[in-house]
Amino acid sequence: MSDSKPSLDTMVSLAKRRGFVWPASEIYGGLAGFYDYGPYGAQMARNIKDAWWDAFVRSVPNIHGLDSAIIQNPKLWEASGHVASFNDPMVECSNCRARFRQDQIDASQPCENCQAKGSLGGAKTFNMMFKTSVGPVEGDDSTAYLRPETAGAIFADFDLVQATTRSKIPFGIAQIGRAFRNEISPREFLFRLREFEQMEFEYFVRPEHAEQELSNTKQICWDWLKTIGLKEENLSWYQHGEDERAHYAADSWDINYKYPFGERELWGIANRTDFDLKAHSAASGKELSYFDSETNTHFVPYVIEPSLGVDRLFLALLHSAYHEEEVKGEKRVVLKLAPGISPVDVAVLPLSNKPELIKLSHEVYGKVTAETDFTVEYDETQSIGKRYRRQDEIGTPKCVTIDFESLKDKAVTVRDRDSMEQQRVPIDKLAEKLG
Amino acid sequence: MSDSKPSLDTMVSLAKRRGFVWPASEIYGGLAGFYDYGPYGAQMARNIKDAWWDAFVRSVPNIHGLDSAIIQNPKLWEASGHVASFNDPMVECSNCRARFRQDQIDASQPCENCQAKGSLGGAKTFNMMFKTSVGPVEGDDSTAYLRPETAGAIFADFDLVQATTRSKIPFGIAQIGRAFRNEISPREFLFRLREFEQMEFEYFVRPEHAEQELSNTKQICWDWLKTIGLKEENLSWYQHGEDERAHYAADSWDINYKYPFGERELWGIANRTDFDLKAHSAASGKELSYFDSETNTHFVPYVIEPSLGVDRLFLALLHSAYHEEEVKGEKRVVLKLAPGISPVDVAVLPLSNKPELIKLSHEVYGKVTAETDFTVEYDETQSIGKRYRRQDEIGTPKCVTIDFESLKDKAVTVRDRDSMEQQRVPIDKLAEKLG
Repeated sequence: MSDSKPSLDTMVSLAKRRGFVWPASEIYGGLAGFYDYGPYGAQMARNIKDAWWDAFVRSVPNIHGLDSAIIQNPKLWEASGHVASFNDPMVECSNCRARFRQDQIDASQPCENCQAKGSLGGAKTFNMMFKTSVGPVEGDDSTAYLRPETAGAIFADFDLVQATTRSKIPFGIAQIGRAFRNEISPREFLFRLREFEQMEFEYFVRPEHAEQELSNTKQICWDWLKTIGLKEENLSWYQHGEDERAHYAADSWDINYKYPFGERELWGIANRTDFDLKAHSAASGKELSYFDSETNTHFVPYVIEPSLGVDRLFLALLHSAYHEEEVKGEKRVVLKLAPGISPVDVAVLPLSNKPELIKLSHEVYGKVTAETDFTVEYDETQSIGKRYRRQDEIGTPKCVTIDFESLKDKAVTVRDRDSMEQQRVPIDKLAEKLG
Repeated sequence: MSDSKPSLDTMVSLAKRRGFVWPASEIYGGLAGFYDYGPYGAQMARNIKDAWWDAFVRSVPNIHGLDSAIIQNPKLWEASGHVASFNDPMVECSNCRARFRQDQIDASQPCENCQAKGSLGGAKTFNMMFKTSVGPVEGDDSTAYLRPETAGAIFADFDLVQATTRSKIPFGIAQIGRAFRNEISPREFLFRLREFEQMEFEYFVRPEHAEQELSNTKQICWDWLKTIGLKEENLSWYQHGEDERAHYAADSWDINYKYPFGERELWGIANRTDFDLKAHSAASGKELSYFDSETNTHFVPYVIEPSLGVDRLFLALLHSAYHEEEVKGEKRVVLKLAPGISPVDVAVLPLSNKPELIKLSHEVYGKVTAETDFTVEYDETQSIGKRYRRQDEIGTPKCVTIDFESLKDKAVTVRDRDSMEQQRVPIDKLAEKLG
């Protein structure tokens, strides 16, 4: 078995061919930096988000969920510093007006777009927030932004969450949702998007415990990535240098993943100090602090922030799961996704489209769907060999085949994705056997 | 027991006080038409979406999920007709420049805002899509829109979904996600928002079956609302007249709910004909049709669209569940939410904050969380009576209380939300008893 590392092109191609991900508005030529998740991608992304929510919210007594609006009062992004400084340095060609990110080109060379020489000017700043206008009158008064991160509203809502949950320090507020950054050069498939999805939580702690809590959180995040199927050999730690850290962060780490285009950030875990709560307190006039009933004093908590992108994790999971094998002289492509992450848990496949087989197969589909929490797919198209290959490429752990013998012995064949072993199982034991 | 109908103010107040929903950016004065879901609201909204997905996607073999970008190529919204005609008629005050929806004011009266007389001009159209600009250069070429409905990308992706799932007619494509409408007058709490969430599917059928499929779908939608806890007496059917229907719809029905502010649309169910697929075919040059292998011909399917707002359903469920009762001379407020919809399934409550009770309560929390799929809350603050009242207002079906006797008999008290009956249950039977 070859443990091949797929190229980015291989993944882009598989993702589209098998209904995981394709460019948004593809029939209109797409739109750079925007992708749609197809049926299998949408289900797999749901599974990823559910797994994260289960691990970091549902099963943790002191972390609470939030689902805030994407568009907030613009004062929030003034206070957070995003309006003033969420900028990329950009250079513009004086000939063709094309713009480039300064850190991605050599400004002494000809313009990439029009080939003019010496046309690239000095760097200007470009704010990466998408702007819009709220209400019927356009103008400065109505300008609002699409959130560049989900964290903003977590800080602004700190007091309301603490009060309604009556939480004691340490406690966390978690959120999953879309965020938007107007990247100058979106690229590398799902890695640098203009519209993406974040899973973040802010964990509020006593300032003197922040260092230890950061260390604990790092370990928890690393371990969780392994449970959902990433290989440890593809992961590494990267600590930001003082000159790389955001101005508010006291310490900042990335879990990097070995993508086909290099080792890049998958999960950022930072000690954001008390910067955000203090900034929102100052800007809003509402004191965001914690009352310590032990010492009868108020203090502003520090916050540990693990920030993970759904799309980057999705890409890492596809990459990690991708295997090519040779089976009977033919190439087999199989996604060895962890159970619970794969978009389909069980495929129900009638051997042929004879009415009596289809009828029994529908019964089996209904039974497994009703008796388990599995996502079950029914597929009656093409030869059984082609359907097995298709399910392998989707990453389906178990295929259930209904054949003519099934009409007599009330049993079906269960095929295992990884070993390709087949086993005969009575229909009335099927749910139990699969689960 | 009084089966009281809460006013909208009562619901707004409960929603904020108990951490369901509050205005977005509240510390900055909010932003009209935008709300944040707090810890209990976020979990309840998740439960609603999961229940819908389970009923209409996971357990239906021929409906497939999609998760498309909010920002699409603007040509998509030109083809759909939204750029040209997704308008509200609006009147402007010539004195103060305030704008109003024409159908909501009497233009012969003084301006509501500045009281000027005769200042309200003739109606102008106002496009309700939020505009933004994609890429580093602002201008007409870079204009894009926040989607006004999730359906758009379903139509544009019709071919890719059909091909990757190899679906046969009839089949559906389903999506849950945010949509945005720049309402001139957002109002009525969660009813008319500028940012909201939709659960939609498009069910593609043979044109000659559309009428029957619409009828079937209407029944399925109605029945589902009952299973998640809406009372039938609060629901009614409303058929759009010919002059009320969207230009593309051949027949259009609403399931109305009796909100505190009147009977209003909860779920729109329409026969959208082949309008959308034909419009996108014409605009993109890509033929969106279905190949019928039985007759060896291509045809453009009709589509049945049930479109449901998460926020409107959330509001209807809160309203339906709200009860006030008199218990021992005191008012008890209880949300009788259906199991699986309530944000918390089980609350674990130590009778006092003695360390040995807290230790055992944490063990009980861990056990129930591990052995069930329940969302469990742990709460050790305030008197047990206040905590019961709090859980009643959150809608928690079962409270588990750990008392000093529990240390000896290894049993706990389980209190039922609706009957308030209490029962002693051994800890090692608890998960089974609750499930």
